[in-house]
Amino acid sequence: MEAREFDPAEDPTFALHRGGKLRIESSVPVDSAAVLARAYTPGVAEVCRAIARDPRLAHTHSIKSNTVAVVTDGTAVLGLGDIGALASEPVMSGKAMLFADMAGVQAFPLCLDTRDPDEIVQTVKLVAPVFGGINLEDISAPRCFEIEARLDAELDIPVFHDDQHGTAIVVMAALVNALELTGRRFEDLRVVFSGIGAAGVACTKMLLEAGTTDIVGFDSAGAVHPGRHGLHGVKRWYAEATNPRGFCGTLPQALRGADVFIGLSRGGLLKHDDLMGMAPEAIVLALANPDPEVMPAEAIGTPVRVFATGRSDLPNQVNNVLAFPGVFRGALDAGATTINRPMKLAAARAIAGCVPAEELAVGRIVPPALDRRVPAVVAAAVAEAAVRSGVVRG
Amino acid sequence: MEAREFDPAEDPTFALHRGGKLRIESSVPVDSAAVLARAYTPGVAEVCRAIARDPRLAHTHSIKSNTVAVVTDGTAVLGLGDIGALASEPVMSGKAMLFADMAGVQAFPLCLDTRDPDEIVQTVKLVAPVFGGINLEDISAPRCFEIEARLDAELDIPVFHDDQHGTAIVVMAALVNALELTGRRFEDLRVVFSGIGAAGVACTKMLLEAGTTDIVGFDSAGAVHPGRHGLHGVKRWYAEATNPRGFCGTLPQALRGADVFIGLSRGGLLKHDDLMGMAPEAIVLALANPDPEVMPAEAIGTPVRVFATGRSDLPNQVNNVLAFPGVFRGALDAGATTINRPMKLAAARAIAGCVPAEELAVGRIVPPALDRRVPAVVAAAVAEAAVRSGVVRG
Repeated sequence: MEAREFDPAEDPTFALHRGGKLRIESSVPVDSAAVLARAYTPGVAEVCRAIARDPRLAHTHSIKSNTVAVVTDGTAVLGLGDIGALASEPVMSGKAMLFADMAGVQAFPLCLDTRDPDEIVQTVKLVAPVFGGINLEDISAPRCFEIEARLDAELDIPVFHDDQHGTAIVVMAALVNALELTGRRFEDLRVVFSGIGAAGVACTKMLLEAGTTDIVGFDSAGAVHPGRHGLHGVKRWYAEATNPRGFCGTLPQALRGADVFIGLSRGGLLKHDDLMGMAPEAIVLALANPDPEVMPAEAIGTPVRVFATGRSDLPNQVNNVLAFPGVFRGALDAGATTINRPMKLAAARAIAGCVPAEELAVGRIVPPALDRRVPAVVAAAVAEAAVRSGVVRG
Repeated sequence: MEAREFDPAEDPTFALHRGGKLRIESSVPVDSAAVLARAYTPGVAEVCRAIARDPRLAHTHSIKSNTVAVVTDGTAVLGLGDIGALASEPVMSGKAMLFADMAGVQAFPLCLDTRDPDEIVQTVKLVAPVFGGINLEDISAPRCFEIEARLDAELDIPVFHDDQHGTAIVVMAALVNALELTGRRFEDLRVVFSGIGAAGVACTKMLLEAGTTDIVGFDSAGAVHPGRHGLHGVKRWYAEATNPRGFCGTLPQALRGADVFIGLSRGGLLKHDDLMGMAPEAIVLALANPDPEVMPAEAIGTPVRVFATGRSDLPNQVNNVLAFPGVFRGALDAGATTINRPMKLAAARAIAGCVPAEELAVGRIVPPALDRRVPAVVAAAVAEAAVRSGVVRG
């Protein structure tokens, strides 16, 4: 009768995953026929009839009130790539675990056995009745952009691709505090991106909205500029929306005079010398996991003043867990029908604000990843922004 | 941060449903960076890679190990009929609640926003990676037959339409004990069915397998017999497989000399006089909910000796909860890839066996619905039958 069995000889990581990492149980004590008569037949029929009459009741009297789907197709899982739906479950349940633990949001992993965008969109639409929100996860670019846009347009619940917007929110929070520390404005920055997949594109959009214009992005084929051949879709958009100086040199060349480097690509890309030409008090967010684009030791003796990675064993861990639990908590609390720009910006500013002015330092531009005060602060800011921007259910 | 808020002025049934009836949380304490490094990044990557190499590991090291989908399209919910996916959630979560509470099986409700069998089959197939079993629920006949057959053929996890097989198992359990009490054999029975939807068809099949041949079934248009016009699909099968005497009269006429009446239709269908012509020591299972086809008081002074209903406030409550938790517990424990006839028969015999010979009585042919000993006994019998019949994963 017990699913979780520990094999003492098993590797501790595998032992911890045995039986799965989520527990689903009744939130009502099934301890008497009287409770059962209300929670199940015949009493449940009244609630069903009431929802059939007024569908809004599903948002308060069913699991839709507080349950988010963590949806993936397993095509871009962590740094592992396209490992498929079955093998992606431990990551999605890990996410669900953090949703529950950090913000009391119930989440259930849906690992879809298809790579076809039409099938993914259709499947999510068909299962949507029991969910109050959709968190898309680890779906490869550029398919993720279309899938998110279609679902957001066709569903009346929030849809949020965490690899894009969760990352953009936390990067933005880190930059808000880094700029505060180094006395800069978004409008004046020269920014270089390495990696313009889902996360890089979303971060770039958020920077453009904040007023930054001098952005140069690199993919595995080099700088993205309007004169480059073979650019389609979001890459074409990127070439047109960024790189106003028409830069077409190498990544180390682009870093000369740059204020900010944002790495969302792969480990070991840059060395000490590459950072030497950056602007004074430069900011480096080297976020590739587990190995950052450049290790902190390489920044010693360079103009770099603020250095962040995605790693928990280094200062300034820029991790999405600072964003997604609070973002969905706030969206659900407000009855939001989408997660729009003002809500994302509010989340970024709320995370930045969780580092008190007197604690702000080059080694402390974001709160710790597991700081349990953060989700509630983010939720309140996101809910307020949802109400102000008029995207809540009537 | 808390979803469950009680409004003291709210009706108690609605108050109990507020926020939904399921709790989803981490089964791992997220209390340290060390645990997080194993449960989430970077440790989780090892488990993902291992599943990608050997997909069988998903059955032990992901929620697939112990999680069942309760799938409906909301077309035949309780006695409410076609109320749609959104309004069906409270029933499906009620089922999930019982799965968890009675047998430690985790269940998640999937209420699908479509009535199209192709879309239902396709959606369930695409979400199957995170599930160890599929419990179909409250899908109207005859669509339910095709949907179940296709899913069972195309998935390598157990698929079980509870309205069919759960009901058939419990009816069979009740009959085993009722026949024991009245000294009869399945082979010699004359049986009359009222209602040949999903449940009636499955019960009929199980009786045919047990050796009963003299079965007459009634739908809303009367007796089903080979000479009746306009019979298609499962009704055509029913006409050919049953009614060897070619009976084409009324339901009260059919009851003359019948040993068993099984009602799976609607309340208030029969009166005292209709039962007067039944065979001595007749058995009546009047299972329509909430109002049985005939009330027990009508049976006083008739040849009826054993009387059962679906109601919790009357003796002999024939309820599916006696079957489905243990059936899935056993199938999951054994690593079964399907739920076949031997497993269903084993479940029925196990339920019947939960009433000890010395307690067997006309008012005690099945154990109480919430008897917590039953699921473990059923699970053991089902698991053994799965192994014996060779339908477990290698």
